[in-house]
Amino acid sequence: MERIGFLGLGTMGAAMAGHLVRFGHPLTVWNRTPGRAAELVAQGATEVSTPAAVAAVSDAIVLCVSDTPDVESILFGPGGISDGARAGSLVIDCSTIAPGATRDMAGRLAARGVEFADAPVSGGSEGAQKATLTIFVGALPAVFERARPILEVLGKTITHVGPIGSGQAVKAVNQVILAGTYLGVAEGIVLALKAGLDVEQVVSALGGGAAQSWVLVNRSGRMLANDYPLGFKVELHLKDLGIALGLAAESGVELPVTELCAEIERVLVETGHADDDMSAVARRIRALAGLPS
Amino acid sequence: MERIGFLGLGTMGAAMAGHLVRFGHPLTVWNRTPGRAAELVAQGATEVSTPAAVAAVSDAIVLCVSDTPDVESILFGPGGISDGARAGSLVIDCSTIAPGATRDMAGRLAARGVEFADAPVSGGSEGAQKATLTIFVGALPAVFERARPILEVLGKTITHVGPIGSGQAVKAVNQVILAGTYLGVAEGIVLALKAGLDVEQVVSALGGGAAQSWVLVNRSGRMLANDYPLGFKVELHLKDLGIALGLAAESGVELPVTELCAEIERVLVETGHADDDMSAVARRIRALAGLPS
Repeated sequence: MERIGFLGLGTMGAAMAGHLVRFGHPLTVWNRTPGRAAELVAQGATEVSTPAAVAAVSDAIVLCVSDTPDVESILFGPGGISDGARAGSLVIDCSTIAPGATRDMAGRLAARGVEFADAPVSGGSEGAQKATLTIFVGALPAVFERARPILEVLGKTITHVGPIGSGQAVKAVNQVILAGTYLGVAEGIVLALKAGLDVEQVVSALGGGAAQSWVLVNRSGRMLANDYPLGFKVELHLKDLGIALGLAAESGVELPVTELCAEIERVLVETGHADDDMSAVARRIRALAGLPS
Repeated sequence: MERIGFLGLGTMGAAMAGHLVRFGHPLTVWNRTPGRAAELVAQGATEVSTPAAVAAVSDAIVLCVSDTPDVESILFGPGGISDGARAGSLVIDCSTIAPGATRDMAGRLAARGVEFADAPVSGGSEGAQKATLTIFVGALPAVFERARPILEVLGKTITHVGPIGSGQAVKAVNQVILAGTYLGVAEGIVLALKAGLDVEQVVSALGGGAAQSWVLVNRSGRMLANDYPLGFKVELHLKDLGIALGLAAESGVELPVTELCAEIERVLVETGHADDDMSAVARRIRALAGLPS
């Protein structure tokens, strides 16, 4: 079984690394801030102090961190993976970062004989814990086949969507669709509330028709209760919309609803709601309607 | 079996009336412009020349027309239903019109002893033909129970959502949710196209996660092909958004994405796309991205 390295033990990463060690992979882990590895070490993982030290003992190296600069630093900074990785090793980046930067960094790794797959995930902390993540993979076909058995330990639907960078582009598309869907549901729920309807019954009546969506079924209750437990943080979706709007600008695309959603999420972050689930976009629509928000 | 009157034999109404006559109801029909009843008459329906003449021979009278002024005219205009309806008869309005006007008109009918249910439908021409419509009913509980067996011939999911006017309010909420969902999917599909992704594969990969919706599954293909067969006409959704924005204004609600969608649909109507399916909102996002639209 391949020796795996795992870098980034946040809510998502810690859960994903746990599946790999329980599956039986020899696992070496690293996190920027210490103190997150105790449970994994108790299950048999080894903790080391630099990304380079992870790379030195791993066949495949999985990253799950926050943003493009974090990946850049872990790969190419002092004590980074490129200092330790051997030719023939494989980097799988499960972070959500910019597609263009992904292609650049993969090119620099390729020059050292290191293979690369971008494999951003969707499904939130619940998906990470239950290993039901949806994973979009950008890679050469042979590299995808090498990464697949590892990713199948972490998620339920693993799709090879094209060459390096494609996984990130698909994730950006996902976040754009969520922007419109969440705002549509938020506007509908707030209108229903203010029109004096029984909102739970409305959701159930609409769920059988063209308005049906995962968001309507799974997130309208939070909008009604004005309570937004995780889920998927507003600040992370805002970060992802920044990536999507960057890709849109590079591609010559204008996305008016996505821009509106990013604007609403910026206000939420500025007013102390960065850690709410992204269904908290309903706070803004509620506020516009004079409801508690 | 109750004698039924049916007024409004457009694409939706003609299909719905057909189910009632085949179910065995004695059926009397009327349409503003003649020539739409031949097939129904061949199946046993009787055509008459005024709404009052329908009402005179019917226990329950179903309306399926375009907008608030049409319903007003059929109910209270010269030769209207209120001239012919007997006390104890029931009017079921399957049109999508304003909730406030619905309450007013129901009050005027009640003064003559005529019962009323608003029962707007969702599911488009396909739903009308297959009798799989979703129907939202606003009525007194006893009136709902009287209307239910008739509506069950027309649709699959019949929900009593509250007092008179509530059915229309729920339909408005439905159209608001559609506005955001369609625009989110349109922006995602156009971004995917311009980023060089395999759009059909993207739709399939995203359909298992939080971006899943009826619109993504059933309408993204039209946005990709830039071809928008019916469906549900842009001009009718725009009319319905006018009703929803009116209800929102009365209720003190602001709906920024709904307003954006209405603006896009107004441009579509002005540029000759009134009869496209509403997935044609993608034309605008495609145009902004320099794609054929």
